Amino acid sequence: MNSRERFLAACRQEKLDYPPIWVMRQAGRYLPEYLELKAKHGFLKMVQTPNLASEVTLQPIRRFDLDAAILFCDILVIPEAMGQPYNFRDIGGIAMDFAVSSRKDIEKLSPDAIEDKLHYVAGAIEATREKLGEEKALIGFGGSPWTLATYMVEGGSSKNFARIKTLFYQEPELFSLLLQKITQALEKYFQMQIQAGVDALQIFDSWAGILSDHTYWDASAKYMAQLVESIQGQVPVIVYAKGAHHWSQTLARTKADVLGLDWSIPLSRFHDMLGGKFAVQGNLDPVLMSTSPEIVRKEARRILDDFGSRQGHIFNLGHGILPDAKVACMEALVETVRGK
Amino acid sequence: MNSRERFLAACRQEKLDYPPIWVMRQAGRYLPEYLELKAKHGFLKMVQTPNLASEVTLQPIRRFDLDAAILFCDILVIPEAMGQPYNFRDIGGIAMDFAVSSRKDIEKLSPDAIEDKLHYVAGAIEATREKLGEEKALIGFGGSPWTLATYMVEGGSSKNFARIKTLFYQEPELFSLLLQKITQALEKYFQMQIQAGVDALQIFDSWAGILSDHTYWDASAKYMAQLVESIQGQVPVIVYAKGAHHWSQTLARTKADVLGLDWSIPLSRFHDMLGGKFAVQGNLDPVLMSTSPEIVRKEARRILDDFGSRQGHIFNLGHGILPDAKVACMEALVETVRGK
Repeated sequence: MNSRERFLAACRQEKLDYPPIWVMRQAGRYLPEYLELKAKHGFLKMVQTPNLASEVTLQPIRRFDLDAAILFCDILVIPEAMGQPYNFRDIGGIAMDFAVSSRKDIEKLSPDAIEDKLHYVAGAIEATREKLGEEKALIGFGGSPWTLATYMVEGGSSKNFARIKTLFYQEPELFSLLLQKITQALEKYFQMQIQAGVDALQIFDSWAGILSDHTYWDASAKYMAQLVESIQGQVPVIVYAKGAHHWSQTLARTKADVLGLDWSIPLSRFHDMLGGKFAVQGNLDPVLMSTSPEIVRKEARRILDDFGSRQGHIFNLGHGILPDAKVACMEALVETVRGK
Repeated sequence: MNSRERFLAACRQEKLDYPPIWVMRQAGRYLPEYLELKAKHGFLKMVQTPNLASEVTLQPIRRFDLDAAILFCDILVIPEAMGQPYNFRDIGGIAMDFAVSSRKDIEKLSPDAIEDKLHYVAGAIEATREKLGEEKALIGFGGSPWTLATYMVEGGSSKNFARIKTLFYQEPELFSLLLQKITQALEKYFQMQIQAGVDALQIFDSWAGILSDHTYWDASAKYMAQLVESIQGQVPVIVYAKGAHHWSQTLARTKADVLGLDWSIPLSRFHDMLGGKFAVQGNLDPVLMSTSPEIVRKEARRILDDFGSRQGHIFNLGHGILPDAKVACMEALVETVRGK
């Protein structure tokens, strides 16, 4: 059984001797070979150049022999393609060129021509597939409509998310207009990624956790359900909603194949909360990758033991790997998951 | 029944016609009269001057007739009194003068003489009680040992909390030495507050939610349990652990009288998860206070209706009120809770 088969079998909750493993942000700043390329080209050029994006995508596969590659890209290419460019603040975080704040702003955003504007993503997927071969899985991704809307309405990274929540509570019709536009753009974007050759798609609902029980469906999950429906039967979909495990029933309504979990509760409990009906992905605290191989082995072992003989586990961190993660910790993680 | 009796009855889970209400950070930046005083004196001078601190403490009581006043102070007076001063970054957030990083740093911190260094807090409590009278409750507070340790080891506000978690995983003995010192300082601090006249104490475990299921007891809750034990029988204790409702059984082990909840799940569910054995406090999303009185009324009503005939509810926000909250929303909130 090769890596790609193992990954897809886990998505279908088939019985496996050990879970497939990949790591969120695995093509990133903790890798010396990534930093070298970034110093030369810069982040946005790497995203927009298929040969560079595919090279970065492959770096962690070469080094750690992971089961799946995740396309090197950024969730904010969608707002950009809709007419709202962005850049990175010197002090860290995202700054959109402007904040979406009126009906006029929203009406100006266009989900049309996404495929033209983001043709470089299709190019990167094709280039990656060619170099990756058929034995590894390739994952495409996008931000959830809610998570993208937070950046678009807040004008970048936010602390309290007051503007987007105020829009949700105070102008539900405008909120819905914006989220529908983003969802339309994502539908096209995901179809393009499928055509270009991804084996699965992950939707990152990174800002799920700032919502509340009675708002999560209306503000976020229902748009993800719409996306899952548009993909259904083509490739498996992973919904990763950070800080949201307690809305497991709402997450189940998205009908994703796999649900991701941060490090808040044991993965076994999350699997049980979902009635055992979904594959799950997670859930090592990313900070552990900055400690030592011994600690990583112990904590990874804890997750494997806890999950026990349940079926449908894709091993991953509970969120993206951090820039100060150690290569030796990644090696220890992969070895542990493979029982070496 | 006056406000103080109502507040204390809710802590004991007695049957009430409507819950008492106060609001985290109620003496704060959304109030024009607070901003006026702050412009004149500055934050730290207001904290350290009993007459100013008591004036700020009373401002929201005068304006909104809330049931409880919470002492105007800051959780970081404890690290400061232990030998680690701090200030506020221009771009927002906290900067400690240095980060605690070695055994030597920890050994230098002293929990002795807390009462001398923080005598101004006792002065502020006495001055407040004198002006507040006997009919309103007065709440004292401190940060949890874990939450304080995050600032001390990270050197201020943090994003990923890698340093404090690495200390916890990699040097458990040093971690424990630091947390024990902070706990000792807090024990003295809380006794001082009780002697000075507070009716209850709240422990803010604001950074609870970044831990995980199997670390929460060892990294945070057990130190709060130690604090609760040192207070037991003197005044009720409220433990507010943000982003941690799913560790309800661990929170129950702290033996606090009241457990606070953010806005992640309905308060009724949290009460039920605790077997109905604890009073609960919360849980309106603070962002709602920046919307409109109508929305606040509707969402506050939702919380009251959801809690139904259960006993032991102190109405509050799910976290501190934000600087752009509207006075009209606070008025609407108090009226709604009182059924007006």
